[in-house]
Amino acid sequence: MTIDKNEANRSLIDKINKLEEENDEEFSHAQKILLTTDGSVTAILDVLFGKISLTTIEQHFDVADKEHAELLNINEGEEINFREVIMHRNGKPLIYAISHIPLGRCSKDICADLVRADIPIGRILKNYSIESRREIKNIWIEKPNALLKEIFKTDEDMLARDYVIINNDEILMWIKEVFPISHFR
Amino acid sequence: MTIDKNEANRSLIDKINKLEEENDEEFSHAQKILLTTDGSVTAILDVLFGKISLTTIEQHFDVADKEHAELLNINEGEEINFREVIMHRNGKPLIYAISHIPLGRCSKDICADLVRADIPIGRILKNYSIESRREIKNIWIEKPNALLKEIFKTDEDMLARDYVIINNDEILMWIKEVFPISHFR
Repeated sequence: MTIDKNEANRSLIDKINKLEEENDEEFSHAQKILLTTDGSVTAILDVLFGKISLTTIEQHFDVADKEHAELLNINEGEEINFREVIMHRNGKPLIYAISHIPLGRCSKDICADLVRADIPIGRILKNYSIESRREIKNIWIEKPNALLKEIFKTDEDMLARDYVIINNDEILMWIKEVFPISHFR
Repeated sequence: MTIDKNEANRSLIDKINKLEEENDEEFSHAQKILLTTDGSVTAILDVLFGKISLTTIEQHFDVADKEHAELLNINEGEEINFREVIMHRNGKPLIYAISHIPLGRCSKDICADLVRADIPIGRILKNYSIESRREIKNIWIEKPNALLKEIFKTDEDMLARDYVIINNDEILMWIKEVFPISHFR
């Protein structure tokens, strides 16, 4: 039992170590933290770079297919908000993010702020004093698609992770974040 | 309104900038993050240094005086758990922390783990899937007292912050964290 109760972050440690070994990379402190933190990424970027801005590339409502229903632990056919954004500082892109939010779990105020398209989720949660916890699911390296190449003006490898924000024991949001491997070094 | 909804982290940004200016210091990314994050500090240390350990210097129950009652928003005379710890990696001290926890807001399981003296609070919250939010109160530089000098084997300035962890709209914990200004550079 002694061992178990102190192993809460074992899977995070293992994921980062494995990723570094498999790719012969050594991540910076800031990169490791951004890939594993259960705190607000917006707050970290705000403090490191000055208040960042958010530009929404795409935002729409859609019904969940099988894959999205599984990600969010909802039924197929339930409505979700889909948002694709860039967090940037004075036009310099920092992190690209996709979020899926089941509308049925989202208060009217929060839904309205999501649709407004310029407020990062970290700030929305803070503005409404939402109590939550974040579960990091996967951390990996991927090749950029055409959109990521265009946003970041590079074809280098991307660091990525996905995680869920849990509120009232239910998944309130699924989020994927991506940034070029040379960022935050 | 547009401005307000995006100003959630303004006070954090201002606090760090002011501290840097007043002390003619430039903090590292890791230092800034450790001083401002609303996520688990244990998780950050675990990922940066490998699984860290906790040594409890002092742990006891006491009734709240006026000052502690105000910190925790409880009545004077209510019982609190007082804990003073060092988070270290293989004996190298990383961060010193003090926590005050009102026993009336703490489940039996969590209280038992606090008393066990070797489990960091970040891991306790994670083990019990506690949904919460953290409010950073102050960030400052202080001179080390005799205990801090002995722990860190230095008399250099210390970076410090205090914050509360809120659960069910009540303060579950007040925490102060301290580390030497040359750490995490």
